[in-house]
Amino acid sequence: MYFFDEKRKQPLHIQLYEAIKEDILTNRQKGDKLPSIRKTATLHNLSKTTVESAYTQLCAEGYIESIPKRGYFVSDLSFTQFTPPAQNRRSQNALPEAIPWRYDFFPARLRSEDFPLKLWKRLFARVIDETIDFGSYPDGAGEMGLREQIAAYLAKSRGVVCRAEQVIVCSGFADAMSLLAKLVKRRYDTFGMEHPGYHVAHKVFADYGYNIRKIPVGKQGLDLQALETSGAQIVYITPSHQYPTGVAMPVANRQKLLAYIKRIEGLIIEDDYDSELTYKTRPIPSLQGLDRNNRIVYMGTFAKSLSPALRVAYMILPEHLLPDYYESFDAHFPHVSITTQKTLEHFMKEGHWERHLRKIRTLYRKKHDLMKKALRKRLGKTFTIVAEGGGLAILIYPTRPFNWQKCKTLAEKKRIKLYFAKERSGGDFEALRMGFGGFSETEIYEAVEAFGEVWDACRR
Amino acid sequence: MYFFDEKRKQPLHIQLYEAIKEDILTNRQKGDKLPSIRKTATLHNLSKTTVESAYTQLCAEGYIESIPKRGYFVSDLSFTQFTPPAQNRRSQNALPEAIPWRYDFFPARLRSEDFPLKLWKRLFARVIDETIDFGSYPDGAGEMGLREQIAAYLAKSRGVVCRAEQVIVCSGFADAMSLLAKLVKRRYDTFGMEHPGYHVAHKVFADYGYNIRKIPVGKQGLDLQALETSGAQIVYITPSHQYPTGVAMPVANRQKLLAYIKRIEGLIIEDDYDSELTYKTRPIPSLQGLDRNNRIVYMGTFAKSLSPALRVAYMILPEHLLPDYYESFDAHFPHVSITTQKTLEHFMKEGHWERHLRKIRTLYRKKHDLMKKALRKRLGKTFTIVAEGGGLAILIYPTRPFNWQKCKTLAEKKRIKLYFAKERSGGDFEALRMGFGGFSETEIYEAVEAFGEVWDACRR
Repeated sequence: MYFFDEKRKQPLHIQLYEAIKEDILTNRQKGDKLPSIRKTATLHNLSKTTVESAYTQLCAEGYIESIPKRGYFVSDLSFTQFTPPAQNRRSQNALPEAIPWRYDFFPARLRSEDFPLKLWKRLFARVIDETIDFGSYPDGAGEMGLREQIAAYLAKSRGVVCRAEQVIVCSGFADAMSLLAKLVKRRYDTFGMEHPGYHVAHKVFADYGYNIRKIPVGKQGLDLQALETSGAQIVYITPSHQYPTGVAMPVANRQKLLAYIKRIEGLIIEDDYDSELTYKTRPIPSLQGLDRNNRIVYMGTFAKSLSPALRVAYMILPEHLLPDYYESFDAHFPHVSITTQKTLEHFMKEGHWERHLRKIRTLYRKKHDLMKKALRKRLGKTFTIVAEGGGLAILIYPTRPFNWQKCKTLAEKKRIKLYFAKERSGGDFEALRMGFGGFSETEIYEAVEAFGEVWDACRR
Repeated sequence: MYFFDEKRKQPLHIQLYEAIKEDILTNRQKGDKLPSIRKTATLHNLSKTTVESAYTQLCAEGYIESIPKRGYFVSDLSFTQFTPPAQNRRSQNALPEAIPWRYDFFPARLRSEDFPLKLWKRLFARVIDETIDFGSYPDGAGEMGLREQIAAYLAKSRGVVCRAEQVIVCSGFADAMSLLAKLVKRRYDTFGMEHPGYHVAHKVFADYGYNIRKIPVGKQGLDLQALETSGAQIVYITPSHQYPTGVAMPVANRQKLLAYIKRIEGLIIEDDYDSELTYKTRPIPSLQGLDRNNRIVYMGTFAKSLSPALRVAYMILPEHLLPDYYESFDAHFPHVSITTQKTLEHFMKEGHWERHLRKIRTLYRKKHDLMKKALRKRLGKTFTIVAEGGGLAILIYPTRPFNWQKCKTLAEKKRIKLYFAKERSGGDFEALRMGFGGFSETEIYEAVEAFGEVWDACRR
């Protein structure tokens, strides 16, 4: 006999289900017959529907079985030992606690204030009223309208030659690299990367089982001789603004690289991550635009000049890789919310993107120059500039012996977040990456002032 | 001597840069000295700034070199053969053309009309005005507020036991699987999957180099004996609503599976993809909630009940995998736009999600029942139902010999898109997946009527 409480919030059929389940687990054994639905209903003064509903649920979960024309029987649950949920199963596995930084020189930060908030909101409100299909899976490669905008923009500003069909919209650089690593695995097994170079690039390919070759970077960018001896078939490079050294690969080397890759039928991954942000010259044209042999995968992102929080990047696949891509399941699953894609599409279409870029370039050029000035003022002749003129950071290096380890710990103690080139790029190349993007103009002086105290204490 | 056109839109320094570049490539050789900036300025009646700007750009791109106190010299470009961009480099590599379907029975479609458009728009407008930082990289695992909402929802509706820190927000199922495959590669090398089963699941793991084992599925779900012999350490299952057969794993087998995985220190991936959509019983509680040994990765998605176009899914990692995840670079790169995350967070927080689910469940239960009725009416006794009562499709199978190949081609000819279980899940299990989610109530009858003609023509 089960007892029910009409006042309890739980419907009666759930109360009955719980009661029978409890009864089965504690008192019954395999093959025990349950009273018929009608019988149980009469006994407990419940409707037949209520009892049927409880029995159906018990059947669905496997506690009882229904045998046609014979009735309901308890299943074989001999194995089942129900342990009550452990209270402290939620072990508080401590995660690294976030330090509230006073100054964070992160070299890939923008100021939220520079994001075109009102415009974005207005465009979003408009696109969502237009024909967005929220019920279907959109194109896995991205919205065609957005891809057309990206192709047109790249043709104009970077000399990239491509059709919209070659543009694949991704949620970030690592996401694009992962898609690519998977896509070309049947063709290649050895991946070459700049050394020093961006640490995430080779990690993605290493995870997919590629052999990794580190190719030294000199004053002219990637060492082409070393590339040839390495046996790498795919090579990841940042030719216009090498990460982290900042050097640009001269045009002669670009041509040599293209010819070599053509000869071995290899692939170049051109990461053009902050091409929009050059302050002293016009942007150096892309390698992709020089290539005549469809040997380049071009990678770009909106993270460095619009927002890293929107999660939109793209890659341009060469024609010969398209069939493989479109045959894979990846072509069915887009990586970016349709609302973000559509808003960005209209943002570009109506010319806001180019206006935004002009604004950002002016703003960040100013901050770049201020950072340089502030460093000169505070540090005097104790440092040299290793790389400048582009992106969101100036790279500096001490002129005298310097205690790098102390610099790191002391800065943390003073809640100043510093970025050391070595930590994210491997190799012997060391420099401090003095990011200015996240600071206002006044903050630059304050931040450098605070940093100066750390710097002075570490000089030997 | 170069010629300039003041009326051209291009600034003079760019015209000069182009002219010198052309000159270098056609007439000059390595080591040729360029006239000094002053000389060129005088000669062409240009300002020194204009000339300096052109020279700087040529230096940056590697056409010339500046030697301090000596001047500017042409670089070694002997290798450089500039081919003009080929006009038909844009080979129109034909992609499969989209067929304009009259009726599409896609089993994972929703109706755009059922998306809470106005509400979403209103919430978006509010969250974007609140404190979103568009300048920084958000938490790679997702916004903590959203993760708290997901954890609370799963605890309530699916019996899932987890902390918000265990929730990783992803852009979709394949995205989550990919992250996981990478994360546990050091621990495991053999992946077991249901056979028949969801084709994407094992593809992701195969791409990461895992050995794949196919484990048969019977009337009680996964064959546990076969699992043991397979040697799989990770097993992917859909225990509450097996894909594609629709069976639920009974509670006794769940306990056995959990005990086995505990014994081998393996891992279960529980894909609970359409748990919200059960029409005949209450949802079957999750396997994760039964587990006492932290051996389950739970996968869920908003694609099946909110929108597949928003690209939001999640996985719940067991505690012991968290340190590896948080140490990887993945923890730094979120997969979903912050605006989408924040909007969804508020959508859940204010109770709209649960209201939406109730609405959707009622709507789709009705469509489910209509589809069944329409099939009965049109096809009579020529079919049996293989799976029903949940999700967005009813699975049917002909009672008599049937020409499956003809069915496929004839349907395409009549522009009716059908889905065959075998095509997406492997094995011998065949059934037609009659998706109803994308249709209005009237469309269900029309679609089944049109489908009936194909069906009749294929019966033998």
